[in-house]
Amino acid sequence: MRIDIITCLPKLLEGPFSDSILKRAQEKGLVEIEVHDLRKYSTNKHHKIDDYAFGGGAGMVLQVEPIANAIDDLKSQRTYDEIIFMSPDGESFSQNIANELSLKGNLIILCGHYKGVDERVRTHFITREISIGDYVISGGELAAAVVTDAVVRLLPGVLSDETSALTDSFQDGLLAPPVYTRPADFNGMKVPDVLLSGHEKKIEQWRFDQAVDKTKRRRPDLLKKD
Amino acid sequence: MRIDIITCLPKLLEGPFSDSILKRAQEKGLVEIEVHDLRKYSTNKHHKIDDYAFGGGAGMVLQVEPIANAIDDLKSQRTYDEIIFMSPDGESFSQNIANELSLKGNLIILCGHYKGVDERVRTHFITREISIGDYVISGGELAAAVVTDAVVRLLPGVLSDETSALTDSFQDGLLAPPVYTRPADFNGMKVPDVLLSGHEKKIEQWRFDQAVDKTKRRRPDLLKKD
Repeated sequence: MRIDIITCLPKLLEGPFSDSILKRAQEKGLVEIEVHDLRKYSTNKHHKIDDYAFGGGAGMVLQVEPIANAIDDLKSQRTYDEIIFMSPDGESFSQNIANELSLKGNLIILCGHYKGVDERVRTHFITREISIGDYVISGGELAAAVVTDAVVRLLPGVLSDETSALTDSFQDGLLAPPVYTRPADFNGMKVPDVLLSGHEKKIEQWRFDQAVDKTKRRRPDLLKKD
Repeated sequence: MRIDIITCLPKLLEGPFSDSILKRAQEKGLVEIEVHDLRKYSTNKHHKIDDYAFGGGAGMVLQVEPIANAIDDLKSQRTYDEIIFMSPDGESFSQNIANELSLKGNLIILCGHYKGVDERVRTHFITREISIGDYVISGGELAAAVVTDAVVRLLPGVLSDETSALTDSFQDGLLAPPVYTRPADFNGMKVPDVLLSGHEKKIEQWRFDQAVDKTKRRRPDLLKKD
């Protein structure tokens, strides 16, 4: 899998991609992640990539031309399955979409910034708009990092223990049950006896009950789906 | 405002906080953001902070002791309004919660990693659990960065133009209307005439109509609320 991220603030993405599972996944050759500085695609001598909105209003808008140049350049090198724009008004990102994207080959993710991007980018160049949630952040970079992380960790071989992702929240429609580790007693706060019992069947049942109970309390909507 | 983030992967947060509006907000003295390495609070000589889950299963669990030490240390220095744990089974982060948190004084944000944190942390030390969306990412670091970004950009004086955040998606219950910038014609793709008309009232009406139309098409659920 290959993910190309187009951004006007490449530095923002250095941290998230230089440590943790995203780094290891790249080192293992399981995914290629390239961050492209939008300014390189500006035809303006000052590397300008934004301008005021037509019709007035606060905030700067990313121009269509450098983005079109960046996407065209990438598309001339390989075929892409999706050209994704991160935007709070896109479809809501979910574990299902993460699963779906993890089966794709090449993706472009465009990060918006300032007030947004020229609408012609969205109409003519983007194949899919994704939102990580109903809130506004200052740019698409963190959102692109979130999507990349959620997708890459699902690729076979990325997590050290392949069963780990399967027991995450949402993968079976339930929130994950509580987990405990050493010490069994911390200042009088104790681990539930069943987990120390060594009785595999009982532990499994306890975890399932806890997951169902937590889901009922916190996210009854998840149980109603399908 | 002050935000203390506790993490076992501080490097992940270097990028997001070293550029963009989060950097400028700190330079202007509008917010203090401190990232704390959880390993510093380990009492183990190998700086161990995680262990296997009681009852078995894949993945490592962050231990209660170093986290308790970190939170106690911070609380001995100042009072906190909330001690937040980032978790996919927490309450769904929204623009309303961002608005609410932006009015607080001091916040601690704890990032989980590996398979999760010992449940006793959540029961005894955390005041609020927040999820950035219905998907799983490899740690709470990106989630903490998302919440921090969404909150800090709402602080007065952080955005260069204070009206900018008010016209974002969700702040008025509507998705934002399309924006356009120069050139007015890009390879035959044109900007709507009304935006070039200079007629302020008509532009305002067009934007409102577009916002309502987009919200109806993409997020009818937003119009049903209240």
